[in-house]
Amino acid sequence: MTKIIAMNAGSSSFKFQLFEMPEEVEIAKGLVERIGLEGGIFSVTVDGEKKVQERDFDNHEDAVNAMLDELLRLEVINDINDIIGSGHRVVHGGETFEDSVLITDEVVEKIDELSELAPLHNPANLMGINAFREQLPDVPHVAVFDTSFHQSMPESSYLYSLPYSYYKEYGIRKYGFHGTSHKYVTGRASEMLGRPLEELRLISCHLGNGASIAAVKGGKSIDTSMGFTPLAGVTMGTRSGNLDPALIPYIMKKTGKTATEVLNVLNKESGLLGVSGFSSDLRDIEEEAKNGNSRAELALDVFGERIHKYMGSYATRMGGLDAIIFTAGVGENSDVVRAKVVNGLEFMGVYFDETMNDVKGQEKFINHPYSPVKIIIIPTNEELMIARDVMRITGME
Amino acid sequence: MTKIIAMNAGSSSFKFQLFEMPEEVEIAKGLVERIGLEGGIFSVTVDGEKKVQERDFDNHEDAVNAMLDELLRLEVINDINDIIGSGHRVVHGGETFEDSVLITDEVVEKIDELSELAPLHNPANLMGINAFREQLPDVPHVAVFDTSFHQSMPESSYLYSLPYSYYKEYGIRKYGFHGTSHKYVTGRASEMLGRPLEELRLISCHLGNGASIAAVKGGKSIDTSMGFTPLAGVTMGTRSGNLDPALIPYIMKKTGKTATEVLNVLNKESGLLGVSGFSSDLRDIEEEAKNGNSRAELALDVFGERIHKYMGSYATRMGGLDAIIFTAGVGENSDVVRAKVVNGLEFMGVYFDETMNDVKGQEKFINHPYSPVKIIIIPTNEELMIARDVMRITGME
Repeated sequence: MTKIIAMNAGSSSFKFQLFEMPEEVEIAKGLVERIGLEGGIFSVTVDGEKKVQERDFDNHEDAVNAMLDELLRLEVINDINDIIGSGHRVVHGGETFEDSVLITDEVVEKIDELSELAPLHNPANLMGINAFREQLPDVPHVAVFDTSFHQSMPESSYLYSLPYSYYKEYGIRKYGFHGTSHKYVTGRASEMLGRPLEELRLISCHLGNGASIAAVKGGKSIDTSMGFTPLAGVTMGTRSGNLDPALIPYIMKKTGKTATEVLNVLNKESGLLGVSGFSSDLRDIEEEAKNGNSRAELALDVFGERIHKYMGSYATRMGGLDAIIFTAGVGENSDVVRAKVVNGLEFMGVYFDETMNDVKGQEKFINHPYSPVKIIIIPTNEELMIARDVMRITGME
Repeated sequence: MTKIIAMNAGSSSFKFQLFEMPEEVEIAKGLVERIGLEGGIFSVTVDGEKKVQERDFDNHEDAVNAMLDELLRLEVINDINDIIGSGHRVVHGGETFEDSVLITDEVVEKIDELSELAPLHNPANLMGINAFREQLPDVPHVAVFDTSFHQSMPESSYLYSLPYSYYKEYGIRKYGFHGTSHKYVTGRASEMLGRPLEELRLISCHLGNGASIAAVKGGKSIDTSMGFTPLAGVTMGTRSGNLDPALIPYIMKKTGKTATEVLNVLNKESGLLGVSGFSSDLRDIEEEAKNGNSRAELALDVFGERIHKYMGSYATRMGGLDAIIFTAGVGENSDVVRAKVVNGLEFMGVYFDETMNDVKGQEKFINHPYSPVKIIIIPTNEELMIARDVMRITGME
């Protein structure tokens, strides 16, 4: 009974998924919300059946404890020792963590130091890690970083054109995010294409509420659209993506906001929400665009076009292209966005088959059979990647 | 004797060029520096012979007066009325000016209003205009805007993913610059290719101390790398180009600088200077890179790579590509940068001929003869475009 749990902890919530390994079978998953607040909610899904409890939790430890009890009660595990390891999503690994790592006191300390680069995320991720280390002191815990996969970028990709001392002194560089997802889908693409990763040039489009594109050559990320933070790159649900940096002082002057307040607008009131004026949810926007709402159409055009341009940009970066991959909520489900991204790429050997595009959330090729460059929808599975990394890092695989 | 003068006025200097039209022969050019300051310098070049005077000027009118006197004295003109029109470079035309325009009081007022968008440039440009209107009250004066050529961009190109009200209320959008240059070289490329502009998809690389790339389809700019200001886009001599916008508040926090001070770093201490640590001048950097200076090599790589990526990005934007054009100081003279930009584009039909690349400042194709996509060096001539626009706008052509 080799069970591995994959955790994704936020400051007042966590998601978990329990796998039977190495079979990679998901045997339970769940969500705890409003930890430390009134009106806590705890849901577990086993065999497709979802059970929801309303229950308050003092802190992450309390919630982890309750989760383990529930898994015992539901007989998903017979003994707490059935869980032989846990894997934890950590947003920022800086330049320290080029790969997933076995969690030690030293690692915890380093993740804490890196909170400077991800003040909203790393401390929350650590709450989950600490709760597990407390509750399951005898098994290995592994940290899996959103940034690690992109540590292979060359200096010319990750360095900003700023005074060099900003890189050395303040760690200012492109880090990139969604690495676990980009790694999963590019690995899966290699299997689906029947070709080794080493010889493939792939563009991975992780399009969810946050969105990032990665150029993956020979299995290694060589460039990605997000930057120092997940604000950069393409238009997102509420995030602006790239901007003329001179706009920040200009907006401050015009609106009387502080730099931090402007940053808040760029993170929370921009993107699809800002352009459309009514929603950050692509489904709402597609619906309204169908109804002839011109601002909704504009939001779709802006979103599609910004991603579209990366296709050529990253093919250029790799000297050519073997496949384009779509993943995450929008990438897996929006035929409209996919069509906007891959239409008009015939000049570089991408022949999109519109008739194959009416699909949601399943693995599928949507290119013409004779297209030299393939287009593949691959539902992402970051939790499985985390479970796999626990096996790999602990030598259990 | 149809003579047209093209003016480019800064706050304490101006450059001028006198053309015989419609023959497009340059008959004199010159530079006045340190207007309103001690140690003024005035140079005029006629028939390749440059005369320099040290002389102080109270203001732009004084300098224009002296220039006209000197042209009479040198018998470049026989009478002040030989000059039948003047054209003036104006940096920012906002959304008001989609083309060059005959200068009236109303136009002057509008250019003045647009100073908000170009506080360093429009007021200086106006000093030149006002001096000419004063000194040559009976001839037409035409304003030629850096932004006009890019007014053809579709909304999805020029709109940022910000709250839409920022566009409506504050004019926040991509404007683009170097339009006069992009228009000149793309027109010239059409002649050199022997094909009408209407059917061409061109990428124009204006690479000087400032640098911008434009996607020109059917003779119209549909996208460009500079943005709301000339800070955006690729790495430049001292400018950062695009950045994760979240870096501005972060740099403010780390350095204690205000937003305006950070913007100053991004404009004046970044780019090639920031990365290399010793110079904003590409020639110095190429020299040091040859000597094995790794930071100089890094600066070259960063600069080349950022431009390189636009090749695929803008080919994508146009659904393919007919030619890549290099112009301005770096574009016309640096074989190293050109090679970095166009190598590795074979996948999209660009076959660069390294053996043709050893050329400075002259019109030349540098692609393999059989390359479907051409690569052309075209020295820019913004002054000639300005003179042409005077003819066109006044109906004298």
